[in-house]
Amino acid sequence: MAPTTDNLSPVVALAGGVGGAKFAAGLQETLPPGALTVIVNTGDDFQHWGLTICPDIDTVLYGLANVNNPETGWGRANETWDVLTETERLGGEAWFRLGDKDLALHLLRNNWLKSGATLTEITDRLRLTLDIPSRILPMCNQPVRTLVHTDEGDLPFQDYFVRRRCEPTFHGLTFVGADNAVLAPEVAESLQTAAQIIICPSNPYLSVDPILSVPGLSDLVRASAAPVVAVSPIVGGRAVKGPVAKMMREMGHLEHLPLTVVEHYAGLLDGFVIDQQDRADASRLPLPTLTTDTIMTDLPSKRRLAAEVLQFSRSLMYS
Amino acid sequence: MAPTTDNLSPVVALAGGVGGAKFAAGLQETLPPGALTVIVNTGDDFQHWGLTICPDIDTVLYGLANVNNPETGWGRANETWDVLTETERLGGEAWFRLGDKDLALHLLRNNWLKSGATLTEITDRLRLTLDIPSRILPMCNQPVRTLVHTDEGDLPFQDYFVRRRCEPTFHGLTFVGADNAVLAPEVAESLQTAAQIIICPSNPYLSVDPILSVPGLSDLVRASAAPVVAVSPIVGGRAVKGPVAKMMREMGHLEHLPLTVVEHYAGLLDGFVIDQQDRADASRLPLPTLTTDTIMTDLPSKRRLAAEVLQFSRSLMYS
Repeated sequence: MAPTTDNLSPVVALAGGVGGAKFAAGLQETLPPGALTVIVNTGDDFQHWGLTICPDIDTVLYGLANVNNPETGWGRANETWDVLTETERLGGEAWFRLGDKDLALHLLRNNWLKSGATLTEITDRLRLTLDIPSRILPMCNQPVRTLVHTDEGDLPFQDYFVRRRCEPTFHGLTFVGADNAVLAPEVAESLQTAAQIIICPSNPYLSVDPILSVPGLSDLVRASAAPVVAVSPIVGGRAVKGPVAKMMREMGHLEHLPLTVVEHYAGLLDGFVIDQQDRADASRLPLPTLTTDTIMTDLPSKRRLAAEVLQFSRSLMYS
Repeated sequence: MAPTTDNLSPVVALAGGVGGAKFAAGLQETLPPGALTVIVNTGDDFQHWGLTICPDIDTVLYGLANVNNPETGWGRANETWDVLTETERLGGEAWFRLGDKDLALHLLRNNWLKSGATLTEITDRLRLTLDIPSRILPMCNQPVRTLVHTDEGDLPFQDYFVRRRCEPTFHGLTFVGADNAVLAPEVAESLQTAAQIIICPSNPYLSVDPILSVPGLSDLVRASAAPVVAVSPIVGGRAVKGPVAKMMREMGHLEHLPLTVVEHYAGLLDGFVIDQQDRADASRLPLPTLTTDTIMTDLPSKRRLAAEVLQFSRSLMYS
């Protein structure tokens, strides 16, 4: 079916961690079941305790299944910590906080990966088990690992993000393995048939760039007839969560951070969504811009923002 | 130091699962700290959820650390089951009951194995963390896997033992990989310097034979100047726990099961310990025999049996 402009048309969202998962949950609430596909960053994936951990996929899974911890944004609600407590007692590392319910998923995924299933297949199996109506697609099935260049040397993503809490000064990124990543048929097909493409309010450098680093993926976004809209992860000149604003400062961008986001996505966007606290920046932006409240504190606010962004995106189809 | 006959002399026990771990705990209570080395069956080891699980090593670790579940004999006391519950919910297999504390150890071990540590090194690290004064040695560092031949075909050990609850009729065993197993220096040294060698009341076929299948190991037991004593796993013509009597019946041994055990260990033993309920069988046994109460229900009964067996074993040094 060719893309149409009604509510049933497929919507593709590119998402990283907590902000992306929140916005994707709003889209899912707003759209008919099955209309949403979320392409998720796997650059944060890493090996821990011998298991393959996929933090962004899990944050999106838990968020869309509404079993996430609403306080932290990541991990499970009503989590227990019996394994971690005992592992620590027996001499294991505990800097990465793995709860029992969370670990259950890692164990299953790891076992299925060992049995030869792809991350795409496993993620689909999990979202169906968790009764998630949206498709969730890892950006690719090959390992792509974000390496953070800092003033303290190169740090694997989780070392930078969790262990060092983003404290080292950021110089740049390499997505190790991206050259060998292969665009999955499911990812290509979703982008080719998308009626709307939305870049979630995720960290452009850490969460969205790894997705765009998969060979051929950004070409499909550019080639799409669908409007491409990004939601700014900046609110009031700062990040809602995470290190994006700190990283921008460390790259010399001290003000007009929404413009920095737009320039970063150069050539990709048809529209941009900024927070009302940044309305002074709107006039600097060289593309159609929706200014609204982008803070998502609960399901109604996620739903409202998603509906506004979808409406704004649809309006760009006729421009 | 050459072996002497006092209480400080090194004692080596060969042990399998629950019965072996109970008796080893009694030996540890009776002997001075550091005098006991337990060589443990690894033929039951298997891969589950992508992890290497070593049931007998863990039963001995938990038993000697006094953190075992006294009701089941295996697993941890005060265990929780959050991971298993969630794994089952997410579509995973749950036939092998992995508790949270137990799983913590499997995760650590698996990770350490992946990092290149040997099972011997890992087991020693764990027993030190668990404040166990005795040495615990896996029978070897290479994978040896017990395959059970039954009237329903060949079954990997855990499939026979846990999943099928030993129901299929037993025809025999193969210890797959035993030909390539290498006697570890620690195992060899412990047997060469042992003042007493004790075969615990473990299943001769499933628990002790895999240990004896490691090339060179049974030769060291035979060559040792130390008395070798086995404690019968049979009480009143039946197994205290597990399928040993059922297996004997299926091999055509319908009565005088203590004699069957002695004949099975032909050429290895200097003495044998049978339960008082089997005293009628004592006269049939072609070697020095201690008849006593072999049921271990609590720490005092484990300690009493261990002390009696050690005294009996020492008496054989002068025979």
